[in-house]
Amino acid sequence: MDYRTLSPAQVRALIREGKLSSPTAGMCGGYAQANLVILPKALAYDFLLFAQRNPKSCPILEVLDEGSRQIRYMAKDADIATDLPKYRVYEYGVLTGEYKEVSAFWRSDFVSFLIGCSFSFEEELLQAGISVRHIEEGCNVPMYLTNIPCESAGIFSGNMVVSMRPIPYRDIPRAVAVTAAMPRVHGAPVHIGSPEAIGIRDIHRPDFGDPVTIREGEQPVFWPCGVTPQAALMASKPAFAITHAPGHMFITDVKNVELKL
Amino acid sequence: MDYRTLSPAQVRALIREGKLSSPTAGMCGGYAQANLVILPKALAYDFLLFAQRNPKSCPILEVLDEGSRQIRYMAKDADIATDLPKYRVYEYGVLTGEYKEVSAFWRSDFVSFLIGCSFSFEEELLQAGISVRHIEEGCNVPMYLTNIPCESAGIFSGNMVVSMRPIPYRDIPRAVAVTAAMPRVHGAPVHIGSPEAIGIRDIHRPDFGDPVTIREGEQPVFWPCGVTPQAALMASKPAFAITHAPGHMFITDVKNVELKL
Repeated sequence: MDYRTLSPAQVRALIREGKLSSPTAGMCGGYAQANLVILPKALAYDFLLFAQRNPKSCPILEVLDEGSRQIRYMAKDADIATDLPKYRVYEYGVLTGEYKEVSAFWRSDFVSFLIGCSFSFEEELLQAGISVRHIEEGCNVPMYLTNIPCESAGIFSGNMVVSMRPIPYRDIPRAVAVTAAMPRVHGAPVHIGSPEAIGIRDIHRPDFGDPVTIREGEQPVFWPCGVTPQAALMASKPAFAITHAPGHMFITDVKNVELKL
Repeated sequence: MDYRTLSPAQVRALIREGKLSSPTAGMCGGYAQANLVILPKALAYDFLLFAQRNPKSCPILEVLDEGSRQIRYMAKDADIATDLPKYRVYEYGVLTGEYKEVSAFWRSDFVSFLIGCSFSFEEELLQAGISVRHIEEGCNVPMYLTNIPCESAGIFSGNMVVSMRPIPYRDIPRAVAVTAAMPRVHGAPVHIGSPEAIGIRDIHRPDFGDPVTIREGEQPVFWPCGVTPQAALMASKPAFAITHAPGHMFITDVKNVELKL
């Protein structure tokens, strides 16, 4: 099945029925995808403030009302507890399980955050004639912990996580321009070139996702990544939290172009 | 004294010493100005969420830590309780006084929000050769309550407040382009032309600020205004809140151009 041409509602239905649980890169071309963080209300202010202070890695697309599973702005008839292909549950900062849905865990004090995802701008890169290696190679995007500190907020602090795409030298300025126009899904790269300069020791061993081939004549280009708040979350060890599994995003009904203004 | 060429630190010092208490439009050309809302922590989450859901009228520039009067990102050596030319205190939604400083009211549970202000882009309009009428006429910018609903969040809801500048027909596209590039200080206009279409009955009687002349060959152009959260605040009648007095902004050390990325 060609998931790139399916509508977000069609893909979410397949996910909800348990028929699809793979990474969402390249699905529903042109539609924005989102990272998910679900927290008890007691932690929601610190988290929202962390996002406000780190807008490049944590651009908030929507915050659901306390206890609500229904998305209001980014999608119609979508259930935040069932419509992502894979969830992670963390207890006291430890990953205690991966699940296809999280209804059984739901609590009335949960607040859900949808955060912009760089998968959203990959369709724009493709349209601009710039190939995206992990889509080419059919795997998850490589993601790395860096030494770039986030601004802390309340109990949340940590370093930035980045996603990486190898880009041919001649295409880099265009890749920067295309993504800079989309600040609500991370915007411009945070770093171009030497992985060591931002604290990445081995580019072939990402901290999340899969390694991809870097060819001669290409530079690794790094974008702020929505896994950043997950890393901050783990470090703060809250009693309970739910996130998407890296690369397994929520697909919204909002087109990328609508996020440009 | 030509306040346009003074530095933000110089103007803030004059204000702190009680030597300056006038509206800040046109001061410290090129530096971003900010609206202020101070609330007890118990209301801070709802307010931050209201801002997240209404980014055009409430673009948050900085949120101070609970109880702190020191600004961390937008200015150096600035005190949020003394460095604005005029403050307003609201009790249960009623304006109970205007003050030159608010140290005497300070509480350890206060959270201060700095919100982008359209005064910031006026220098950019001037640079583009577009005259700004209220600066020309030496008065405060006219502001109006509209019938454009905000997205509600917790206890906060209300309609959008707009600021208005009359612009000659031929300059309107350029005024839109210049301001659209600055989303952190309200960005593009929300409405161009007929005041009635957005619920303004008498353009010569603004709800806040002063009326300005609209000449033949000009259209009123309306931008989302940082007084919007003040209006939402008044409607929700919190026991205690402090804001800037309309037009009497906090002048930051950050240049407008730095807010473009």
